[in-house]
Order: sequence, then structure tokens, then C-alpha cells
Amino acid sequence: MYIYLFYIICESLVSLTLTCFVACAYAYTYRIERIGPLSFLLAAHVRLKMSDRVLEVHFLPELTTEKALENSIVVIIDILRASTTITYALAAGAKCIYPFLTINEVVSWKKENIDTFTEGIILGGERGGKIIEGFDLGNSPSVYTEDEVRGKVIGFTTSNGTKAMQSAVHAKRVLIGCFSNISAVLDDLNKERAPIHLLCAGTNGVVTREDVLFAGKVVHSLANSDSNFCLNDEAIMASAVYAQTLVKQTTLDSELRNTLGGRGLTKLGYEDDIELVSKEDVFSILPTLDTKTWSIRR
Amino acid sequence: MYIYLFYIICESLVSLTLTCFVACAYAYTYRIERIGPLSFLLAAHVRLKMSDRVLEVHFLPELTTEKALENSIVVIIDILRASTTITYALAAGAKCIYPFLTINEVVSWKKENIDTFTEGIILGGERGGKIIEGFDLGNSPSVYTEDEVRGKVIGFTTSNGTKAMQSAVHAKRVLIGCFSNISAVLDDLNKERAPIHLLCAGTNGVVTREDVLFAGKVVHSLANSDSNFCLNDEAIMASAVYAQTLVKQTTLDSELRNTLGGRGLTKLGYEDDIELVSKEDVFSILPTLDTKTWSIRR
Repeated sequence: MYIYLFYIICESLVSLTLTCFVACAYAYTYRIERIGPLSFLLAAHVRLKMSDRVLEVHFLPELTTEKALENSIVVIIDILRASTTITYALAAGAKCIYPFLTINEVVSWKKENIDTFTEGIILGGERGGKIIEGFDLGNSPSVYTEDEVRGKVIGFTTSNGTKAMQSAVHAKRVLIGCFSNISAVLDDLNKERAPIHLLCAGTNGVVTREDVLFAGKVVHSLANSDSNFCLNDEAIMASAVYAQTLVKQTTLDSELRNTLGGRGLTKLGYEDDIELVSKEDVFSILPTLDTKTWSIRR
Repeated sequence: MYIYLFYIICESLVSLTLTCFVACAYAYTYRIERIGPLSFLLAAHVRLKMSDRVLEVHFLPELTTEKALENSIVVIIDILRASTTITYALAAGAKCIYPFLTINEVVSWKKENIDTFTEGIILGGERGGKIIEGFDLGNSPSVYTEDEVRGKVIGFTTSNGTKAMQSAVHAKRVLIGCFSNISAVLDDLNKERAPIHLLCAGTNGVVTREDVLFAGKVVHSLANSDSNFCLNDEAIMASAVYAQTLVKQTTLDSELRNTLGGRGLTKLGYEDDIELVSKEDVFSILPTLDTKTWSIRR
């Protein structure tokens, strides 16, 4: 309690000192003489606060670094379909999800933990979009039903989503975002002061429009409610990509069908997944990756 | 002459065989029975032709490969400022431009060729946006005047533009595109049948909006005049990024000032360059990189 109070006082002092410094710089630069000192200090304080809400988009994990995401809020975006599947699985009552990079890792983990997780282990994921041989479930959100996953622990590996999580290993918090829980993501980010990084998973190193569309909708919504975000070029572009769907008045479903991922899924016979993935705000849960235990919980 | 005729006949036969094949597939898939055979063959032929005009955008050289660009028309895009500077230099009468990756390479090349190019060698380029020590000119388009470069050979190295060219080493043709010569680029691409790849240089591995805006304008213009292009996700997104500037009715100049590159140049004191770079269709020349001699000529 006392430590917290001490922290608050220190932070206020530092903030006030910086504010005075900025106020002086303003006064010198703009030759302000007549404005009252209080309102002037307030204006300078607002200006100072403007630069501290970073909101960046990264079109691929390869386009950022662990260092850049350190101490930030990172939203992992793999719309078709890992982000959505994880959200559906946790909404259906799965206890938690352990994400893995390789099939070997998840298989070994199951063998080692079969006696620890007596509630039962489900293996899920995909390679090339299809269910992995010997696994219980693929990567379709619809198959993660209550009957299948309630109370169970899931070992999960996908080609891109779980890889994107690796970049966020030093983040302050790691959220899983998709259209099914977009309002929960926005509510959380609106309360945050830490830098926000929206990390698109892409598909095997190729930028995918479905991920950028989601990132764009988040930037569009946050920047509309608070214009003081510091956006990188990718964030401005993502927002423009989403804003164009508003101008064209197309449905999210039709947009997602005409993306690299959407076309790939249609070819594989998973067209129904696209429709499911396009439904907004189905759940209010916020899957969060605990980087210490490397498990995702709601 | 006979070889050409033989080629035309063979191509027609192959095209007709494929058309018949697609027609049969259509007939089987859509259970078409009543439509007249001629109009049906024509429809199938049009469908077949739809897939042969590839138009792809790559936000960074790292997001594509030499293999993917093989036998294509590649447009190198480094709006702020290499593409623009090269166009201005050739328009001012420079004989040709040799692009190099490193400073050492361009300096050695000058030493080796001082007696070959008796018309005179100019060294130009930048590191960190600034003129390189010992070089004649920096990377501002405005300094490549007739007085400085007419009839001369230029050795040129920049951080990103010359690196992007390396990816296009196996391309059919390599063009240098910028807003200053955008109509010349569009006229050329409109006549082409080969796959088109618009290659954004970015800045040190970071995607830059000024390059994507140019690529977007090209996609927007080409796809408006011919809807049969096969676009990748990056092309659709670039087009949306450009289309948003039309919706917002902002000037290109104000958009470029608010990009990563634009802000960087303003900090370095090169704000005037942004205004120059934003001027469309100043020249009708089309700088082309000859991949055999590795030199750029108009």
C-alpha cells in the first residue's frame, strides 16, 4: 500500500516536471505570453500525453522483433483460423490451450503430461489447413463444441498462429483477437496505457488481407474514440484497408472469401468456416496467453 | 517470319484445346445444355484469359523472391527518393545510371572505369538519408540538374532502392516508377501481357506507406481499365490504401508528409523533396534497368 502511494507520488512529480519543461518549450517556441498559466500547463500536459499511446500494426511476425514488442500489449491475429478456433474452444469450456510450434512438440507434451492432466487432453491443429494425422480435432472453430472440449486441456499447433505468439514472448500481455470477440478486445485496449501492437500471423510468410482487415478495424475503432494514438505506417494502411470495406459497403463474409486465406479454405472444402469466422461479437471472452506457463486461458 | 507464323499457329491450337477443355469442365460443373456452342466457347475463352494477367504488389523486397519475379515486368518503387531521383537524373540528360549496393562497390567502380567513361562520372546517393562523404550529389531529385549531369554517367547507391533491384535480377524487364513518371509506367504496363510485380523498397525492412500508395495508384488505374487482373492480397490492400486518399480528398503532398519516409526527410531538412516527389507526370520517360549491364537508361 505505502509502496503504491510512493509510486503514485513519484510518478506525479516526474509527470509535473516534464509538463513544466514542455510548457516552457512551448512558451519559447510560440511566444505565448497572455495565456493563463493553469490552462497553459494543462494544454502542455495533454500534448505530453499525446505521444505515449503507441498503436502499431505488423503485417507479419517477420516484420517485427521480440525486442519491439517487449512490455507491450500484443494482439495475436490469425483470423482464418487459429485466433477464432482458440476463442471458440475456450468459449465452449476448454480449461486451457497450450500452443506449440511443431507436431513433435505437442505429441511429446501429451505423453509427458497424460497423468498430470487427468481431466483429459485433446490434440488440435492443422498443417496445410487440414487436420493432423492422429489428432482429435482440426482447426475449424465449429468442431470445438462443448461435448468435445468442456473441462479439457488442449494441445494446439497451427502453421502460423502459434508461430506469431513466439514473437510476443517478452510482452506485458498477449491477447488473442478475432471478429468473434472484437468488442472484448476493443474494451480491453481502450483501458490500456501500455503500447499496443497488433500482430498479424499471415500465411507462411505471406501477408494476408483477413488479418490486416481485423487489425484495421481495431485501429479504426480505437483511433475514432481517441485521436491521440501514435500510429505506424502499417496501422494507417490497415485502417484504410478496413475503411474501404465501409465505403464499398461489402459484407465481412464476402471480403474474407476473396482473401488468400479465404480462397485456400474454399479449395480445401472449409467454406463454412469463413461464414463462422465473419460473425462479429459472438463471445465476450478474451483469450490471454500467459507467457510464463505458455498457456491460453479466458 | 515462318518461325513466327508457326508460333502463332501453335499458340492458337494450344489456346483452343485449353478453351475446349475449360468449356467441357464448365458444361459438366454447371450442367449447361441449352446455350449455343459458339457463345459458350467464347465465354470459356474469356474465363481462361482471366487468369493470365498477374498483377502483384510486394510491400518489401524481403516479401518476395528472385524466383517469383522471374520473367515478369518488375516496377521498382522507392518514392522517397531513389525512384524519383533516378527519373529526374535521366530527364536532366544523364547518359545512364549504374546502381550499387555498397559505397565501396561504387567507389571501386569509379576508379576502374575513370578512363572508360571519358564523358565524366558523377557519384550520387545517400546513407541515412544524407549525402555520402566524398560523393558529388545526394539523393534529392532537385540537385540532379542539367548543369550537373547532362551527358554524364552516374554511379548511384542508396539504402533501399538499389537493394530492391537485386530481387529483380531474373525479371523480363525492370522499370523504375514514381509519381513523376506514373503515366509512362501505366502506358507501358497496359500494353504488357507478362506478369506484373510492383516491388516496394520500404526503409530498412520496414513497410513504408509512400511506396504502397504509389503501387496502389497503379493497381487502381490498371484494374479500372481492365478487370481481368489476378491480384494478390497486397495488391488489393495497396489499391484500398490509395482509394482512401480519394475518399478523404487529401493531397498526395500531405499524405507523403505523414509517412515514415516523409517524417524522416522532414527531420533531416529535406521537406522540399516531398513536395517535388508529389508532383505527378512531370516527365514521360521510363527509366529501365538492363539486368545484363546492370545500368539504368531512359
